[in-house]
Amino acid sequence: MNDAQADFEVTARIEGCGGRAGRLHTPHGTIATPAFVPVATKATVKAVLPEAMADLGAQALLANAYHLYLQPGADLVAEAGGLARFMNWPGPTFTDSGGFQVMSLGVGFGKVLSMDSGAVRSDQVIAEGKERLAHVDEDGVTFKSHLDGSRHRFTPEVSMGIQHDLGADVIFAFDELTTLLNTRGYQEESVERTRRWAQRCLDEHHRLTVAAPDKPRQMLFAVVQGAQYEDLRRAAARGLVGLRDPAGAGFAGYGIGGALEKERLGEIVGWVTDELPEDRPRHLLGISEPEDLFAAVAAGTDTFDCVQPSRVARGSAVYTADGRFNLSAARHRREFVPIEDGCDCYTCAHYTRAYVHHLFRAKEFVAGTLATIHNERFTVRLVDRMRAAIEAGEFAELRAETMGRYRDRRGART
Amino acid sequence: MNDAQADFEVTARIEGCGGRAGRLHTPHGTIATPAFVPVATKATVKAVLPEAMADLGAQALLANAYHLYLQPGADLVAEAGGLARFMNWPGPTFTDSGGFQVMSLGVGFGKVLSMDSGAVRSDQVIAEGKERLAHVDEDGVTFKSHLDGSRHRFTPEVSMGIQHDLGADVIFAFDELTTLLNTRGYQEESVERTRRWAQRCLDEHHRLTVAAPDKPRQMLFAVVQGAQYEDLRRAAARGLVGLRDPAGAGFAGYGIGGALEKERLGEIVGWVTDELPEDRPRHLLGISEPEDLFAAVAAGTDTFDCVQPSRVARGSAVYTADGRFNLSAARHRREFVPIEDGCDCYTCAHYTRAYVHHLFRAKEFVAGTLATIHNERFTVRLVDRMRAAIEAGEFAELRAETMGRYRDRRGART
Repeated sequence: MNDAQADFEVTARIEGCGGRAGRLHTPHGTIATPAFVPVATKATVKAVLPEAMADLGAQALLANAYHLYLQPGADLVAEAGGLARFMNWPGPTFTDSGGFQVMSLGVGFGKVLSMDSGAVRSDQVIAEGKERLAHVDEDGVTFKSHLDGSRHRFTPEVSMGIQHDLGADVIFAFDELTTLLNTRGYQEESVERTRRWAQRCLDEHHRLTVAAPDKPRQMLFAVVQGAQYEDLRRAAARGLVGLRDPAGAGFAGYGIGGALEKERLGEIVGWVTDELPEDRPRHLLGISEPEDLFAAVAAGTDTFDCVQPSRVARGSAVYTADGRFNLSAARHRREFVPIEDGCDCYTCAHYTRAYVHHLFRAKEFVAGTLATIHNERFTVRLVDRMRAAIEAGEFAELRAETMGRYRDRRGART
Repeated sequence: MNDAQADFEVTARIEGCGGRAGRLHTPHGTIATPAFVPVATKATVKAVLPEAMADLGAQALLANAYHLYLQPGADLVAEAGGLARFMNWPGPTFTDSGGFQVMSLGVGFGKVLSMDSGAVRSDQVIAEGKERLAHVDEDGVTFKSHLDGSRHRFTPEVSMGIQHDLGADVIFAFDELTTLLNTRGYQEESVERTRRWAQRCLDEHHRLTVAAPDKPRQMLFAVVQGAQYEDLRRAAARGLVGLRDPAGAGFAGYGIGGALEKERLGEIVGWVTDELPEDRPRHLLGISEPEDLFAAVAAGTDTFDCVQPSRVARGSAVYTADGRFNLSAARHRREFVPIEDGCDCYTCAHYTRAYVHHLFRAKEFVAGTLATIHNERFTVRLVDRMRAAIEAGEFAELRAETMGRYRDRRGART
């Protein structure tokens, strides 16, 4: 069952930093890393069919345990044969733990989180006049559904149960999300609590795995928190690396979470990867902007997910090597050229900016489909190019060339 | 240029009635008839990419001159290389004349039409408190855009100009839409006016065709109106059949329009086809329900279009051989079976009712995509089966078997 030694291999390194290329083997296929993993929140990449995601080179998809728990229910997905089969995706899948969503969506009023606990002292970060919808205690999180306000409770064991029902190849330990509004003291407590929860996840994952020996192997990743504090990030990573399940196995990989200051992303990620074992894969949660991807790859992370490429696409924003622009702007009305010159995506091969502009103006669903395909292909291809550059020893050149051009033109367009 | 003698051939007939199978040859391909033509109102079948339409067997698509005139503009579509190229559809295309839309959408408040004219006496059908947005006179129709209320004017010549810009293989003469609320007197006037407009369309079509000898040939269909009156329908058809362009050619085919009483559809269509030349194709505008399609084919019509399969799909209603049902109803939540047992569509091959139900509940775009693919395939396949049955001499058997089952179960489900 536990084949942690063989499931990831590093095949090339970036000289002078922690970055690397590799291969992550899962029961549903191998992911060449670094790799961008598009998000299929509710068991579908919004507006796009799975064949299109395969065609654009997506190697894996990531869905949300929180969303699928609420709707349609993890038990129903299990009955359907698991997440991949339910959504007709033949390749590897990831699910996050729900830790991020119970805190960020459970509140339901933007980004301000409210936390309290009985046994544990906590900050009371409460936006004025807003109901607290998520409450953290030592055992887990009680939250209200963003759909109907109904009350629910996630614990490490509940999250593992849900993620075993969903059956993704890569699953994440249940962690606590903090914000930059939390005090240093609270961050310290939170990191410790996340470590205790991680141990419970390891134990429960082991128990569930042993109880269902015929199911495909699932790889459990811990999530390293610690906000913007170097000592906390390093301590969090070390703490998680030291954990073992009852059979003596550690985590199959490591996620890096939390709100990262964009300017210091590479630095913060570097503290963490410096503490992590070289032979385990690392997933950075929630990034997709070109400069962030370069920084994260250079700092030694292997996979990435983000809703951004599809979310902004549905709002008509598209990425190109020259920068990002808004397709519904009037100046694109008669542009009978592809969204991006030379792009190899389905959208650019078959449609003009003028057509997609028309679809956005006409409020046609297919506008979001075409723009999403382009943006996901742009992001997947960018990370694929990083992988090829690492293997060719040309990562620094690719980064300088790409970001020089991307930044220059983005400035010129806005 | 005018190849009217060779562009349609009847290959088989239904014994004892006017129904037939045939082949309609266009510059972009041949349509085996009878054939259902899905609607791509604004140059896209809502929620579905063109490859999926080709995969599900659609032989042609029909777009709306009115919608494309307002947005993005027919000149822009012409600049893009025409409708088919603009929307990446490699096969034959149809456009309607805008006659229906300027009256039904121009009003903007449902189905009540308002008409007046200077020279011509008319009924004043005006819903209380609703602004009249369309005005008919002898020369054409002045209307307000349903998008922004701006004023526009369509005449037969304007409609021909737009449809030549759009460049579809089959185009329709500009006709006046009446409703069951109009008096017999007004219907008579309207049929006469539609005939005069048809002559102007023939002339303008000829002029535009001669002026652009290198463009692919477009086939102009007249539209037969006459409401529920046998004498009017027959007179309308005879009047249009007698018209000739300056080169002596008549219409390439005939559309049958107007609000048809469902129970008398076959009868009313039969009056018209009885008057039309056997060697010309006939298009019945705006039908897709199984019983209507059977009645229309039996009565000798060859092609059909309707927004219904995709419109109801986006509202989660799906067709099966057993009847129509609503996929978002709670009873389908755990049905791990295809929408329709034995269906050969993409959706049924890859997804369960439970999954599509989940997508509808989760308000995911892809729900509409998957349901539309199923409903369009259902409708296209049904008409394809009629064609095969005609060729095999088994149309009556197919009709009895299909409608017996469809009606029985629909009753049971509602």
